[in-house]
Amino acid sequence: MSDPKQPLIKSTDEVSKGDVESVPGKGDASGTNNPDDHFDVHSNSRKYYDIEKSPKPEDVFAWQRKHIQVHDQSKEGYPLNVIIDPAMREMYQHVHAQGLTNVFDRWEQQEKIRCNFCVQGLSCQLCANGPCRISPKVPRGACGVDAHVMVARNFVYRHVTIGTSANMFHAQQAARTLKAAARAPESGLKIRDSEKLLKYAEMAGLNTTHDVKKVAEDFANWVLADMGKPYYEESAMVQAFAPAKRKELWRELGLFPGGGNSEVAYAQTKCMTNLNADPVDFLLTSVRLGIINEYQGLFALDILQEILMGTQKINKTRQNMGLLDPKKVNIITNGHMPLVAHVVIDLASQQEWQEKAKQAGADGLQILGHVCEGQQLMNYSGTQSQSAYGGQEGEWLSEEYLFATGCVDSFVFDYNCTIPTLPLYAKRFGTRMISTHEVIRMPGTEVVEFIPEKMAEQAAKILDMSIEAFKQRKSENREVYVPPYTTECTVGFSTEPIKAALGGSWKPLLDAITQGSIRGIATIVGCTTAHYGQGGSNIFRITKGLIEKDILVLSGGCTSAVMEYTGLTRPEAADECGSGLKSVCKALGIPPVLSYGACVDIGKMTHTAKELADALGVDTNMLPLVIGAPEYLEQKAVADACTAIALGWLVHVAPVPSVTGSDVVVKTLTETTETLGLGKLMVELSADKTVQIYLDHIEKKRRELGI
Amino acid sequence: MSDPKQPLIKSTDEVSKGDVESVPGKGDASGTNNPDDHFDVHSNSRKYYDIEKSPKPEDVFAWQRKHIQVHDQSKEGYPLNVIIDPAMREMYQHVHAQGLTNVFDRWEQQEKIRCNFCVQGLSCQLCANGPCRISPKVPRGACGVDAHVMVARNFVYRHVTIGTSANMFHAQQAARTLKAAARAPESGLKIRDSEKLLKYAEMAGLNTTHDVKKVAEDFANWVLADMGKPYYEESAMVQAFAPAKRKELWRELGLFPGGGNSEVAYAQTKCMTNLNADPVDFLLTSVRLGIINEYQGLFALDILQEILMGTQKINKTRQNMGLLDPKKVNIITNGHMPLVAHVVIDLASQQEWQEKAKQAGADGLQILGHVCEGQQLMNYSGTQSQSAYGGQEGEWLSEEYLFATGCVDSFVFDYNCTIPTLPLYAKRFGTRMISTHEVIRMPGTEVVEFIPEKMAEQAAKILDMSIEAFKQRKSENREVYVPPYTTECTVGFSTEPIKAALGGSWKPLLDAITQGSIRGIATIVGCTTAHYGQGGSNIFRITKGLIEKDILVLSGGCTSAVMEYTGLTRPEAADECGSGLKSVCKALGIPPVLSYGACVDIGKMTHTAKELADALGVDTNMLPLVIGAPEYLEQKAVADACTAIALGWLVHVAPVPSVTGSDVVVKTLTETTETLGLGKLMVELSADKTVQIYLDHIEKKRRELGI
Repeated sequence: MSDPKQPLIKSTDEVSKGDVESVPGKGDASGTNNPDDHFDVHSNSRKYYDIEKSPKPEDVFAWQRKHIQVHDQSKEGYPLNVIIDPAMREMYQHVHAQGLTNVFDRWEQQEKIRCNFCVQGLSCQLCANGPCRISPKVPRGACGVDAHVMVARNFVYRHVTIGTSANMFHAQQAARTLKAAARAPESGLKIRDSEKLLKYAEMAGLNTTHDVKKVAEDFANWVLADMGKPYYEESAMVQAFAPAKRKELWRELGLFPGGGNSEVAYAQTKCMTNLNADPVDFLLTSVRLGIINEYQGLFALDILQEILMGTQKINKTRQNMGLLDPKKVNIITNGHMPLVAHVVIDLASQQEWQEKAKQAGADGLQILGHVCEGQQLMNYSGTQSQSAYGGQEGEWLSEEYLFATGCVDSFVFDYNCTIPTLPLYAKRFGTRMISTHEVIRMPGTEVVEFIPEKMAEQAAKILDMSIEAFKQRKSENREVYVPPYTTECTVGFSTEPIKAALGGSWKPLLDAITQGSIRGIATIVGCTTAHYGQGGSNIFRITKGLIEKDILVLSGGCTSAVMEYTGLTRPEAADECGSGLKSVCKALGIPPVLSYGACVDIGKMTHTAKELADALGVDTNMLPLVIGAPEYLEQKAVADACTAIALGWLVHVAPVPSVTGSDVVVKTLTETTETLGLGKLMVELSADKTVQIYLDHIEKKRRELGI
Repeated sequence: MSDPKQPLIKSTDEVSKGDVESVPGKGDASGTNNPDDHFDVHSNSRKYYDIEKSPKPEDVFAWQRKHIQVHDQSKEGYPLNVIIDPAMREMYQHVHAQGLTNVFDRWEQQEKIRCNFCVQGLSCQLCANGPCRISPKVPRGACGVDAHVMVARNFVYRHVTIGTSANMFHAQQAARTLKAAARAPESGLKIRDSEKLLKYAEMAGLNTTHDVKKVAEDFANWVLADMGKPYYEESAMVQAFAPAKRKELWRELGLFPGGGNSEVAYAQTKCMTNLNADPVDFLLTSVRLGIINEYQGLFALDILQEILMGTQKINKTRQNMGLLDPKKVNIITNGHMPLVAHVVIDLASQQEWQEKAKQAGADGLQILGHVCEGQQLMNYSGTQSQSAYGGQEGEWLSEEYLFATGCVDSFVFDYNCTIPTLPLYAKRFGTRMISTHEVIRMPGTEVVEFIPEKMAEQAAKILDMSIEAFKQRKSENREVYVPPYTTECTVGFSTEPIKAALGGSWKPLLDAITQGSIRGIATIVGCTTAHYGQGGSNIFRITKGLIEKDILVLSGGCTSAVMEYTGLTRPEAADECGSGLKSVCKALGIPPVLSYGACVDIGKMTHTAKELADALGVDTNMLPLVIGAPEYLEQKAVADACTAIALGWLVHVAPVPSVTGSDVVVKTLTETTETLGLGKLMVELSADKTVQIYLDHIEKKRRELGI
């Protein structure tokens, strides 16, 4: 693997600041020139790597483990010391060497000019008497707002309402799609899990004796109607799906929410200048939105999408950029809502479309999923098995590097995370970018509109456009380079497949927990960040630490990509566990990290947790469980943390959220909420300390349970 | 008036920096100490003024006009050079002399430490890879966002969604209240304008042959259902109430909105990190929200409140702090939603409650309205005539100064604008603060919950609490000081009363416009700010300039307070107009500034404009009309500006909005939107230039109309 000309996977000793600084173009990327300028000319001047060279995954895994042990993920040697995805390591260097703007270099540049007021949440830009900032000497904004209200209010409108809206929006689109599946046969949409539909329709109190299409339409309408209620009328979805004891508590605390759209607008209203001035009220509003985020967001969209795409199924598959095939039409589908994408896969798996690709000179046509879209598509039973689905490509940090392979014919994007520089990369490296939802527009890209009733028609357009893009690549004889890395992984875990694997009962798992071979469960979910000490490294270090201590880990989001490219989702990773977890994994043939898929699949984890709590006969807050988001990035992650607090769980986040400017806010989120029967937040940057905190919490919960 | 011991109204020559700096306590207020400390001890050490001394309003008016002519409203002499409300001038000096934190001193303090990135909109705090700031040398945030997307996105989630949500929230509460009026006779609520109800219910396509209560309930439900629709289904309210040609255009541009709550959540979704990256799309989303802001916000709440409180009626009344009566129980109702307050007034106007007040040793009990709540209550035909309604107190800037009179027994607040320091003032000066809606909570204040079905019961609690507060004031023999200023004003203008005053037809007004005695109409609406050159002064200077040039002015918001305390809403102000407008005003006996009331009454102005456009047979964008918000402050004002752009109007704002960091955003808002048939934004800080721009625009529109 260690070709001296291409030391792509470096030992920690080799990674030094010197290496990074010596890369040509660095000067350009750090501020003296506009790095966008490099995109002005279509350049083929890069040096291409040898596509045949394929290092053994075992060597990569060994390097990753050694690297992490050295604890060398700080400022020195950044970013190669935090990037542990071998494909991204290669492509980062390649992009960086060309002086192209890219996420790690931009983060480092911003790190140098970070505003300390904004870091602490002590800056307000709401009204025309501002912007204002607060310091010990200047304790109030012009309106009179103090640090506590400013920080808490910023938390609501910058983070929680946006994240909650987004997850609810996703569920809304899934409901529209289910409705189209029921009403428009020409849409190409299917109802793949009618059993799940009937189960939840019954819980919703709907008549399930009708034809399944009618039930699907009724269920979709029920979901949409619930979102549309005013905030002051109790949500039917929360009533139907939330744990009984939680509902009591939420009513008691005034947190039982109504319709989610109205809840968001109501919370935004509270954020007006000279309106609500109670920091604790703002934070409890956030918890209330967390309940919406779950039951009208994550949980709802998970049900709806599984009805459409088939409930998750445990499956062995492959991950990483090495799945790109220069000889094929490569379509990357990116985002979080595979509502069109799964129809694209259905179509592309038909002989007819493979033939069309071949007529264009390709070996075929494959769809690869990036970020959470890819995680979902390789987990759903209806998509993972389709011949045209090629696997998952990577985390959100790797998007620019992926484009730089020159091997992406079309990039079909529907939602977050699609980073703003991609059109520049598309132009330079010859990718056709296609938005499939009006929620996301990017200048200079194309559109195939989201029309649920015409999914098949729209999917066909996307395939045609992608084949055209491939022809263009061929006609230009464009050079491509595919970093030669893929990892085998076992994915597709969630409530039903795990229960099925356990023989149809939670008892074996609960026995393992009760007896102590599994001490407890940690979810390691959410994003990856470009921070010093992060970039995937923090996730990997914490997860390694947890499984060594017999904590079963569930992953969802870009964390799943990290688990996959570090080999932790292979059954062989059982060998890295403590003896208890190891024996359980070996007996069941499962890895110690169970990939639930995407960040939006957190709704499936809360579902599993509810079932476990029900089986134990306890409230959800009694479980030996920790929710971790060790590299959380964006607003949905914040809303998800609010969900976890509502459900009574300890939530670990890193990096530090922008709330440190108010001791009242910090204390409320990290202490007070727990005294109310809710969960609480915990911030910790050190991986080792994080592991210990998780362990301590789980042991405390075990003691409380008397096990 | 010029008592040398109390030079409260200074000539411009007397107002100098020296005066301000020499006021004791200035040092404390400017940052070396925490001004909140001054509230720790209840102090009665202030020197009280002579309550009997009452300067003539004419002297005040003369001073205001002289002061403005000198053009001395800049940094030197701030803030006494911008404060032209005589009551606020006195009370500011009083508060400032005690070193108490107050809005003008805080603004000046913030002005010195303003962040230039935030000022331009070039700072983003959305995700954990940030906060990021953008400069020419650092052109992108960590995610890759550029200046244009950052600025446009900030505009949406910091301003437009909050403002739109707030106006829609208000309409939602009004609809709930109308429903209670129909269903709960014990609520004390009335349906005062059933003619209006029937008219709009018919436009909504509802069956109006039912009993009026049933129609009211149906109409309220129709409004609430429309807000609850998903964003992708056309709003019935927009369909029913918007101008026909506008609707066509909005459909063409993809701006026709659906349900407002869903629109807000959808727009928030677009603002997620790594989602929408099209600055123009963000701005068009803002215009779309502007349509919601009007038809599911302002316009809706105006109809609903007039049904409940009686359509506006032209009325002669009084304004300013001099209306406080130390011998009475003084209840200030503050905010924007007089839904409980009008029932409080109904009750207090009954002999029974006046008797209760007298038994407590008071001469009686009066309710005074502050900010927009007060403007509304003195305009509605059902509230303005009630014996217990005492008039309007002032603009939002004067709240702290009002408390410092020591004469406010209770301060009943329901919504914005209630500034965060009031609990400190309440403690020091002995006011009982009562929140009447869960949308606004302030630590250390009391709550009488918003329960529409029990308004009378809740109103009675408020009156009881206020009488108790009066007793407390008396028992403590607390000293009070009432600044001796009130102004006579003629208010209560809007579509119906103006049309009625014109003899039931728009023809006389249109003739005056066509013949040129009135050149056109300007609305001077929105807030007041604490900026250099503002504080009411900018509003006054611009309005003076406009009426001198025969432009009829409509006011709404804190601008109305400025018009009132400067005497511009007296019919006598006709003498200050150009000859054309003067003759019209004299003939009709009206002032040249027609107060429509509150900022939320902008919905009534758009209604008047629609009627005028219909009478002329043109689209709304053809009218010789300018929308001005020369001292806009907060998010509702921004949403209102988006409404005006949607309706095709030129919108002037000052101070400068935080969008200057992107030339694309500036160009889109100030030029491109107009090319699409929409209106556009215009930013101008100089009052004289502002007047000229309005005149030029109106003359251009006159030419286009061929008049």
